[in-house]
Amino acid sequence: MSEIEQRRQALAARLPELKVDALLVSSAANVRYLSDFAGSNGLILITRSEAHFFTDPRYAIEASQKITCKVQVVKGPLLAAVAAILKRKRLKKIGFESAWLHYEDYIKLKEGLPLGVGLHPVGRVIESQRMVKSPAEIQRIRRSVAVNSEAYARTVKRAKVGLTEREIAAELDFQMQMLGAEKPAFETIVAAGDRSALPHAHPSARRLANNELLLIDMGASVEGYASDMTRVVHAGVPSKRVRDIYKAVREAQLAAIDAVRPGVATNRVDAAARAVLKRHKLDRAFVHSTGHGLGLEIHEPPRVAKTDKTKLQAGMAITIEPGAYIEGFGGVRIEDTVLVTAHGCEVLTPTPKDLLNI
Amino acid sequence: MSEIEQRRQALAARLPELKVDALLVSSAANVRYLSDFAGSNGLILITRSEAHFFTDPRYAIEASQKITCKVQVVKGPLLAAVAAILKRKRLKKIGFESAWLHYEDYIKLKEGLPLGVGLHPVGRVIESQRMVKSPAEIQRIRRSVAVNSEAYARTVKRAKVGLTEREIAAELDFQMQMLGAEKPAFETIVAAGDRSALPHAHPSARRLANNELLLIDMGASVEGYASDMTRVVHAGVPSKRVRDIYKAVREAQLAAIDAVRPGVATNRVDAAARAVLKRHKLDRAFVHSTGHGLGLEIHEPPRVAKTDKTKLQAGMAITIEPGAYIEGFGGVRIEDTVLVTAHGCEVLTPTPKDLLNI
Repeated sequence: MSEIEQRRQALAARLPELKVDALLVSSAANVRYLSDFAGSNGLILITRSEAHFFTDPRYAIEASQKITCKVQVVKGPLLAAVAAILKRKRLKKIGFESAWLHYEDYIKLKEGLPLGVGLHPVGRVIESQRMVKSPAEIQRIRRSVAVNSEAYARTVKRAKVGLTEREIAAELDFQMQMLGAEKPAFETIVAAGDRSALPHAHPSARRLANNELLLIDMGASVEGYASDMTRVVHAGVPSKRVRDIYKAVREAQLAAIDAVRPGVATNRVDAAARAVLKRHKLDRAFVHSTGHGLGLEIHEPPRVAKTDKTKLQAGMAITIEPGAYIEGFGGVRIEDTVLVTAHGCEVLTPTPKDLLNI
Repeated sequence: MSEIEQRRQALAARLPELKVDALLVSSAANVRYLSDFAGSNGLILITRSEAHFFTDPRYAIEASQKITCKVQVVKGPLLAAVAAILKRKRLKKIGFESAWLHYEDYIKLKEGLPLGVGLHPVGRVIESQRMVKSPAEIQRIRRSVAVNSEAYARTVKRAKVGLTEREIAAELDFQMQMLGAEKPAFETIVAAGDRSALPHAHPSARRLANNELLLIDMGASVEGYASDMTRVVHAGVPSKRVRDIYKAVREAQLAAIDAVRPGVATNRVDAAARAVLKRHKLDRAFVHSTGHGLGLEIHEPPRVAKTDKTKLQAGMAITIEPGAYIEGFGGVRIEDTVLVTAHGCEVLTPTPKDLLNI
């Protein structure tokens, strides 16, 4: 049995405890996880004994070549076809992904069902199943990380004062794709000078000047799987202030990595980074959480955050990415993709993290 | 008053007819339309007299620089802060975007509200407001189209047998960004040979061979606004069958463009393309609709489809993109970005549509 079929079976086996006869899967990432379908319009209905895949005619050929469960190519709204199957199969209790079904679609689906059929919100059960990666998934994440780091290395070699953020981002994206990525896993962030204090800056026409920080946050998508990395380089010799902030963030990042092992709650990992930054009086400059899971999506459970207590398990892939941001001055973030292993973790990202002068 | 403020005011003026005291805006594109905020986590609450913007600390600096209404930077779930304002302002009837609010968020919001406060699903009112573009928006779409066509021209000049789909896609994306696009408006489609029969193929490691079609579907995102274009080129001298299909699709595309003018329903435009393909016995090979609106999103209302009867108005920007797909052989699609004008339309896309041999 293929890995995809195993995933569907594992999910079907959980339907009794979820108290539903079937589960409608509408999140694109979850649909992909359960079918390998990478298009933009697909639904899966998992019953206790079978799985049905729904898409529109644009994807008919792809679906017929790839999908290993029953396929329905539907003209018009997919939900109408789902409702028809539910009726035909006399399924009564239908779970749906409440985090991903829009209210309007919920109402449409509900109105299409016969009396006596109920819709039951179900939490992120497939996301939970996805948290621990299989060896095949880990291989893909490794390839994604390798592509990403190599694209970074090729680009940074040529980065210099005078280039715009956007030109540097264009080169990073180009190199990723030439190395085999389908696309960037998210919009590449390149932020020069004081713009590096914006944790999610969009690359602009701003040119890198001398004596400035340059923050690059990038990830590749390879065979559907994401990597994520942030590095900061400096144009010219950095000031003491820059070096101090950089050292503090690196120390925080290493402390968080050191805390990663099976059984540890993710908020403990977050706390490890935060404690170091507090010691350097930079805790208030750290305005986001320490990391997040990644895989088919760039952000997926668990969160490595104050408010998340997920216990780490071997096979989870997460980012560790503390930062410090000072408005009008600049920001530093250092981020690796990290795999939880049986006894600790493996930092997958091979890119060095000394503060590079360019 | 800025255009953004005018948009918010126009929306606020519609609240009485929607029978709500306030409208919670959660679609990222609609949030951007009403605030210019381009981040991934923002909400806007429009009341009859004011607007509140909510985001998380990652975007605090950007929001303080850019947002012209009240800003709340929220640690934790934004919806909790929304609920607090609703209570404080004693607002009773709260509209929400039912097409974009997930069921889970609907429930969370509902549970956070005091007794007597009601949530009311509201349709795509902001999307309706967005259908007719302002002169400033049209300028952005023109720039996006220009960037896109120039990136295509630069790339096709170098395209040749032996390159992979992915290498060609990488070059297209690189050129777009070097010319000033933030990013591709969607994942660039490059499909060689029989893969061109997949209307939404992902670029692969497949190499372009002699005597093959190469389909390229691409769009730029410039200052937030999308363009969309498809062209097909041929490696070597095309067969009669290829030329016939190409001519039929081009004839269908021109017929649809010819039908575009204010007052015409979009399904009439779709029918114009379909009638031509039927005459060429290719109607069953045309497996999608003729086009779609575009702007802040690559797909937005109206649809140019059998099932859509929106009356065209001057200022609407739409795509016209009929195609014909034959499994195992290949596909042809020709697509332009088209602006509805006072008396007809303007094809914005300047790229020629003769079948180019490379």
